[in-house]
Amino acid sequence: MNNPNMYEAARQARAAAVEMAVLEGEQKNRALQSIITVLRENESAIFDANRKDLLRAEESGIDAPILKRLVFDRKKLDGVIEGIQVLVNLDEPVGKLQLATELDEGLELYRISCPIGVIGMIFESRPDALVQISTLCLKSGNSVLLKGGREALETNRILASCIADGASREKLPPGWIYNLESREEVNQMLSMDREIDLLVPRGSNEFVRYIMDNSRIPVMGHADGICHTYIHASADPGTAVRVAVDGKTQYVAVCNATETILIDRSMVKIILPVLVSALQEAGVRVKACPVCRELIPELEEAGEEDWSTEYLDLVISIKAVKNLEEAVEHINRYGSGHTDAIIATDEDASKYFTNRVDSANVFVNCSTRFSDGFRYGFGAEVGISTGKLHARGPVGLEGLLTYKYKLIGNGQIVADYTSGKKRFTHRRLDIS
Amino acid sequence: MNNPNMYEAARQARAAAVEMAVLEGEQKNRALQSIITVLRENESAIFDANRKDLLRAEESGIDAPILKRLVFDRKKLDGVIEGIQVLVNLDEPVGKLQLATELDEGLELYRISCPIGVIGMIFESRPDALVQISTLCLKSGNSVLLKGGREALETNRILASCIADGASREKLPPGWIYNLESREEVNQMLSMDREIDLLVPRGSNEFVRYIMDNSRIPVMGHADGICHTYIHASADPGTAVRVAVDGKTQYVAVCNATETILIDRSMVKIILPVLVSALQEAGVRVKACPVCRELIPELEEAGEEDWSTEYLDLVISIKAVKNLEEAVEHINRYGSGHTDAIIATDEDASKYFTNRVDSANVFVNCSTRFSDGFRYGFGAEVGISTGKLHARGPVGLEGLLTYKYKLIGNGQIVADYTSGKKRFTHRRLDIS
Repeated sequence: MNNPNMYEAARQARAAAVEMAVLEGEQKNRALQSIITVLRENESAIFDANRKDLLRAEESGIDAPILKRLVFDRKKLDGVIEGIQVLVNLDEPVGKLQLATELDEGLELYRISCPIGVIGMIFESRPDALVQISTLCLKSGNSVLLKGGREALETNRILASCIADGASREKLPPGWIYNLESREEVNQMLSMDREIDLLVPRGSNEFVRYIMDNSRIPVMGHADGICHTYIHASADPGTAVRVAVDGKTQYVAVCNATETILIDRSMVKIILPVLVSALQEAGVRVKACPVCRELIPELEEAGEEDWSTEYLDLVISIKAVKNLEEAVEHINRYGSGHTDAIIATDEDASKYFTNRVDSANVFVNCSTRFSDGFRYGFGAEVGISTGKLHARGPVGLEGLLTYKYKLIGNGQIVADYTSGKKRFTHRRLDIS
Repeated sequence: MNNPNMYEAARQARAAAVEMAVLEGEQKNRALQSIITVLRENESAIFDANRKDLLRAEESGIDAPILKRLVFDRKKLDGVIEGIQVLVNLDEPVGKLQLATELDEGLELYRISCPIGVIGMIFESRPDALVQISTLCLKSGNSVLLKGGREALETNRILASCIADGASREKLPPGWIYNLESREEVNQMLSMDREIDLLVPRGSNEFVRYIMDNSRIPVMGHADGICHTYIHASADPGTAVRVAVDGKTQYVAVCNATETILIDRSMVKIILPVLVSALQEAGVRVKACPVCRELIPELEEAGEEDWSTEYLDLVISIKAVKNLEEAVEHINRYGSGHTDAIIATDEDASKYFTNRVDSANVFVNCSTRFSDGFRYGFGAEVGISTGKLHARGPVGLEGLLTYKYKLIGNGQIVADYTSGKKRFTHRRLDIS
C-alpha cells in the first residue's frame, strides 16, 4: 500500500490480476469475510481517522454537503459491511459458460466470463465508495487502483489498508489493491491506457466530465442526469402529480431526480395549478415555458438553457408540449439518456414512448428515482452508466466482467477447412 | 445520399435511428431481400463503376494488394448477396427480453435488447465491407454513416445507392444510410461524438490506430494482431509443427496469423529443426532468439522489437522460453490480446495457459487462424475486437446492440419505499 512508483504499482496490479482471475469463489468469499473482520477489529481507529479528516475539512471551511459525504461513522461502517455480506451471498460471477459450440468433431468453442483486469476507481469525498467498489472488484476477480478525495485522506488510507490486510489473510495476491494519495498520481493514472482497462469515477458532473475528457481509458459512468417526467394526455392527474413531485423532491442531489416536467398541452389547465402548488409546497422553485406562464403568470420564465440544466436542487423547469411526438423529440434532444418517465393510461402512448426515448431507463407511471441498482434488485452497484457500449443503466457486478473464447482442439488446422477437406459442423452444445 | 451538410446527415441518421429501432423483423427482412433484388438489377452498372475505380487506381500506380482488395466482380457480388441471405435467416435480434423482475406488485422491470443508434463505418478499399456492414446495421436496427476509401469512390457510391433504394422500397426511414465521399467528412465524423454512438473501422493497423487516436467515439475493432503459438514441453511434435505452420502460413496478411512461436526449452532440440525446415519450405523467413541460434546458427537474429512486431508477411520470430510461466508472461507482455494458442497434451498446462493468457481468444492444439466470426459459426461478422469492454473477440450482430430498462408501474413513488410503507419484492419473472 506504500508504493513509491505508480507504474510499478500498476505493473503489480496487472500481475495480481492474472492470479485474481483464477481464484476459486470460496477463497474470494473467505477474503470478503476476513475484510469484514478486519474492519470490525479496526473500527475505533477508522472512526479516529475519519474525525481527523472531518476536523481538517471543517478548519479549511469546506462546504456542508461535502462535509456530510465525508462522514464515516458506525452507521456507514454497518452499511458497507452489510454490502460486503450481500456480495458474499451472490453467485460466483467468473468462469460462467455463456456459449458452447462444436465447430467440428474434437474442436469445441466455449465463451466464458472473466474479469476485465485492472480497474481504476476515482472518487470524491465518500469513503464508503472505496469499500464498496474495491470489494466489488475482489468478488469479480479484478485488481483495483483507488484514488479518493484529498479531504478523505486518513479515512481512505485506513480503509484501504484494512481491505488489503483482510484479503492477504486469505492469501490473495499482493498488489491487487493500491491506494493512491497524491494529485499527480491521478493525472498519471488517466494517462495509463495500457495499464488500466476501465475507469469508474464517482463524483460530481464536472469531476466525471474531467475524467472522460482527459483519458483514453474507457470510462463507465455518467456525467449529466437530465431526467424527464412527461404527463401524457391520457394521464391520471393524481398519479401524474404524485409521481412528478416524488421524481423531483424525494432526493434532489442525485442523477435520477426529475429536472424537467413536460405536460401535454391538453392537460396544462387541469394539471399545472395542482402540480405547481404541490411543488411549491415542497419548497421547489418553478421555472416555466410561455404556455404555462399564460396560465400562471407569476411563474419564473424558463429559458433555452433550462432544458439542458441539471439543477440537482429544489428547482424545476416545466414545459408544455404539443403531443407525444414532441415530448419524445424534446427528451432525445435535451436529455442525457439516463432516466425518463411517461405518465399515461393509454398503453399505445406508453409503448411509443418507451420504444423511442433513447435512454438507459424508460419508465411508465412511476418515479424516475427508481433507476438504481439496489431498487432494481442487483444487490451491489458499480454505478449507473449512460454510455451505450458495455453496460448501460444501473450496473451490477457484470459491469466488471468481460469474456474470452476458448477453443479446444486436437491438432486442427485452417487449411483443411479452406481446401474443403473438412467441414465445420457448428453444432450448438448444451450449456446448462 | 446526396446531402451537402454532414451534420444534417447525422441529424437525419439519428432521427431515422429512432424509427429503425421499432421496425418489425419482417419489414427489415423484406428490405434485405429488396436490397438483393436491386443489387441484381444493377449488377452491370456496379461492375462498370468498379472498372472505372480499378482503371483510375491502376493509372495512379496503386499497390497490387490494394488493387486486389478493390475488385468487386461477380464473385464478390455473389458473396455479399449470400451474406445478406444469411442475415435474413438469423433470428430477430431487437426487442429480446433479457431479464424481468417484479420490483413490487404492479411494478415490473424488463431489460430489452435495442439498437445502439448511429454507427460510423470507416473502411479502406474493400467495397464488399460496405454492403456487409450496412446490412448488418439494417438487421440490428441501426443507422449507418459510411466512409469508404477514395480509390473505391464509384463502386461505393453505386453500392450505397442500391442499398438505400432497396430499403426505401420497403419504406425504411430515409436517412438511415448515408455515404460520405470527401476526406474532410471523415475528420468531421471523428469529432461528432454526440451524433455517432460507435465507430467500426476496417483497414490496416495504421488506419485503425489513427481512428482510435483521433476520436472520442468508442471504437470497436483491433489495431495490432500479434498472435502466438506456444509449444509446451508436453506437445505432440507432429501437431506442434503442423499447427504452428498453418498459423503462420495459411494466410499471412491477416490479424489472426501467428507472428511469434514460443518453444519450451526442453523441446527446442526435437522441434526446432523440423519446424524451421517446414517454415522455410513454405517460404517463411525465420528470425530466432540466441538459444535457438545456438542450435541453428544460420538463423537470422531476432531483436527485442521483433517480439512486438506484426509482420503480416512470410516472416516469423521464434523464441525459446524456460517454461509455461515464462510463455504466459511473454504473451501478456508483448501480445495484443487477440489470439494465442498452446500446443500441449498436458491438460493442466492447457488450463493454466487459457486461464492466464489475457487475450480474447485462447486456443489449445489448434491454429490461431480459427479466430473468425464465420469459423465460430456467428454467421455474420462485424469485426474482431481486442477491447475488453462491450464485445470481445469475433463480433457478430450482438456487437451492434445494447439494451434498455423498461419499468412499468401504476403510480409508484420512491418515498413509499424509503419510508418503509412499502417493500420491494425483487421476484425474478420467467422470461422464456
